[in-house]
Amino acid sequence: MYSKQLEKVLKDNKIAVGDPIQIEKHKKLYQGVLMPGTETQANDTLMIKLVNGYNVGISIDATTRITKSAHPKQEKEKHEHRKQDKTKPSISLVSTGGTIASRVDYTTGGVSPALDAHEIIDSIPELLDFVYIADMTNPMNVASEDILPSDWQNLAKELEKKLNSDIEGVVVTHGTDTMHYTTAAMSFMLDTPKPVVFVGSQRSSDRPSSDASMNLLCASYLAGYSDIAEIGVCMHANTSDSFCLFNRGTKVKKLHTSRRDAFRPINDLPLARVFPHGEISILNKNYKKKSDDAKARAMTKFEDKVAIIKAYPGCDPEIIDHYVSKGYRGLVVEATGLGHVPTNSKKSWKASIQSAIKKDVIVAFAPQTQYGRLDPNVYANGRIMKDSGVVYCEDMLPETAYVKLGWLLGNYKNIDEARQLMAQNLKGEITARTLPETFLY
Amino acid sequence: MYSKQLEKVLKDNKIAVGDPIQIEKHKKLYQGVLMPGTETQANDTLMIKLVNGYNVGISIDATTRITKSAHPKQEKEKHEHRKQDKTKPSISLVSTGGTIASRVDYTTGGVSPALDAHEIIDSIPELLDFVYIADMTNPMNVASEDILPSDWQNLAKELEKKLNSDIEGVVVTHGTDTMHYTTAAMSFMLDTPKPVVFVGSQRSSDRPSSDASMNLLCASYLAGYSDIAEIGVCMHANTSDSFCLFNRGTKVKKLHTSRRDAFRPINDLPLARVFPHGEISILNKNYKKKSDDAKARAMTKFEDKVAIIKAYPGCDPEIIDHYVSKGYRGLVVEATGLGHVPTNSKKSWKASIQSAIKKDVIVAFAPQTQYGRLDPNVYANGRIMKDSGVVYCEDMLPETAYVKLGWLLGNYKNIDEARQLMAQNLKGEITARTLPETFLY
Repeated sequence: MYSKQLEKVLKDNKIAVGDPIQIEKHKKLYQGVLMPGTETQANDTLMIKLVNGYNVGISIDATTRITKSAHPKQEKEKHEHRKQDKTKPSISLVSTGGTIASRVDYTTGGVSPALDAHEIIDSIPELLDFVYIADMTNPMNVASEDILPSDWQNLAKELEKKLNSDIEGVVVTHGTDTMHYTTAAMSFMLDTPKPVVFVGSQRSSDRPSSDASMNLLCASYLAGYSDIAEIGVCMHANTSDSFCLFNRGTKVKKLHTSRRDAFRPINDLPLARVFPHGEISILNKNYKKKSDDAKARAMTKFEDKVAIIKAYPGCDPEIIDHYVSKGYRGLVVEATGLGHVPTNSKKSWKASIQSAIKKDVIVAFAPQTQYGRLDPNVYANGRIMKDSGVVYCEDMLPETAYVKLGWLLGNYKNIDEARQLMAQNLKGEITARTLPETFLY
Repeated sequence: MYSKQLEKVLKDNKIAVGDPIQIEKHKKLYQGVLMPGTETQANDTLMIKLVNGYNVGISIDATTRITKSAHPKQEKEKHEHRKQDKTKPSISLVSTGGTIASRVDYTTGGVSPALDAHEIIDSIPELLDFVYIADMTNPMNVASEDILPSDWQNLAKELEKKLNSDIEGVVVTHGTDTMHYTTAAMSFMLDTPKPVVFVGSQRSSDRPSSDASMNLLCASYLAGYSDIAEIGVCMHANTSDSFCLFNRGTKVKKLHTSRRDAFRPINDLPLARVFPHGEISILNKNYKKKSDDAKARAMTKFEDKVAIIKAYPGCDPEIIDHYVSKGYRGLVVEATGLGHVPTNSKKSWKASIQSAIKKDVIVAFAPQTQYGRLDPNVYANGRIMKDSGVVYCEDMLPETAYVKLGWLLGNYKNIDEARQLMAQNLKGEITARTLPETFLY
């Protein structure tokens, strides 16, 4: 909330939240959009969103001058769509929403999904130097934290159709918050003979530091030219604009809230580097090769009654009983260290886990540390859990384990078969050996 | 389970599980301790634990020779304790258990807590080159996954006593699984005028690759000689034995299941490098200095009714209602991206979170990505949650947020005061600015 005095200054100057303003203070000029006051800021401080997308607070005193400026252009310019070259490799572009498809809302100063696939091409015409975009669809337009397993199912069916049409590969734009969950889901739901490249951006495309353009260029090149028939994430490799990494969809995680190079490989090397000038350098030779004959095939069933539980000191095992009583059929536990949960007499998880397993619930342990591999054989507590029938997911990410378990329980009626498959590598989610250089890559 | 044929071979040679054996196969000799057969291994494969602590499976055929060897010495050698030098800086040594205080159990091949503080000194006599160990206590001896908040309370009281005696600092040996939860707990429960150095090991001290000795040397030097009056973790910095890092207790996390350099700083620089020859190099000047007058003070109350909940696609918000119905007073949500949870109409978390807050439950969001800082102001979904009264924990680790929230609710009766303190930096858990070089440090 702004102070009454400040509200008066704004009113006198006919300035409202969402208006573009300039503030002159100590001979320095700030230009941006006036944001609403918040509870936590000092109430003599005006918040504005700068053109670079960052918010700054400027404390206002008697010497400060505030004026309203012209409104930034919001209307779309009418222009000819650039003509496509049909001799280039053809790709499909599927837009699902997220920052890469969003713009700042000048009323609230916030960012919300806005662009569709056509607008994306219009804003990055260089795409057409590489590829022919055979079709563009927009099956949903949501921030990725709002995506549900039912959206995964729709997307997998959509991608199956695309992949069985006459194209080289597919690019999917997606919000970054849960992109790694979606790529894991697509990895299990979809057998693909062609590249399926997920791409997002950490800064919206109206910001000079946006990664949208380079990420999309690299992703499109990869979809059009590479022989990697895998589902993965293509995003900035580092803080410069030099190249992107293509990471396997079951082995990637968003490890930073805001950096452009937030998506990192966990316990695996990236599949490739992709340069925005059109070059691919393979980093991990262990990938599935493109096949011209094979058909894409979707198996999209998913059991919703699966949950992730984190093990931590003091966590009451009652949470396991709760999920079992609610009819849950699978539980992924983010276990500590090499795969442990509390076994002390006061709050032991043993009885609850054993009881869940007796009721045919699959209990799978994945590493809370993320990096490294579980090994139930080193310590007594691990052996106890293993003997109780817990599935040890080796070096699988807990997020991937969750998606895999829901998919297995949806598609395999036989619980023992599902349990066995949980412990086996299906789509690169378990590696045979972890290379030392993958730690903190 | 071993095959009947193999069981017969073992019986004929009078070999039982736990016996030291040697296996000759293809002119190669393997020596180790026979481990029990497990369900998953091929039943013609013998499992042995090698001297280096690793387990290997050796498939047995007609050409393989298996013989029993002499039993490794398990009796303690009687020897004089090395005499201490009282002119060295004096420290207290507190042993709580974990791998650093454990040995391989030759019956099961597993590792379990065994050593007490005296045995630790006997096995690393070089400690006495640096420090005078004024006293040694052993308040508990548990694997760290079994530690409970009540253990934190006892430990904080124990440390308070030690710190108010005539010593330079304290070394606490601890299991690694949850060491970072304990250092966060001690950071809030204890005001210390002296260094409190937690140390563990990732490989037990009977393995040649053990990190126990170097970690303990560095930790003891730090406790005896440094002016850093903070609570932190001292462990291997990298894969070589060159130096350790001392990381702040509220900003450190175990990021790997087995590597010796598993403990990494999150969103902060390490406080110092510590070399085993006795040298400290400060990496982060922003630390609390030692004070000769100040007294240690423990505030150990802790509210058990606090839980960590992870937000992921498909997670039913019913879990929030469940915890509220069970009388929980605080919930830490591992939110996605800049601080989001699902807000779509089908499975929105909005109503459950708002209802929890109305019932005076503190709901705090911390980054699921771990690295980076939350910002509720960038996207519409963030603003909705912030306006609902959610505490945004900025760049705080979810593990630290959990411990802090339990501590605040235990010690502050006024819920608004607790909520305000949750959003403020008390013990280095929130940094003012994140340095770029801290990502993947």
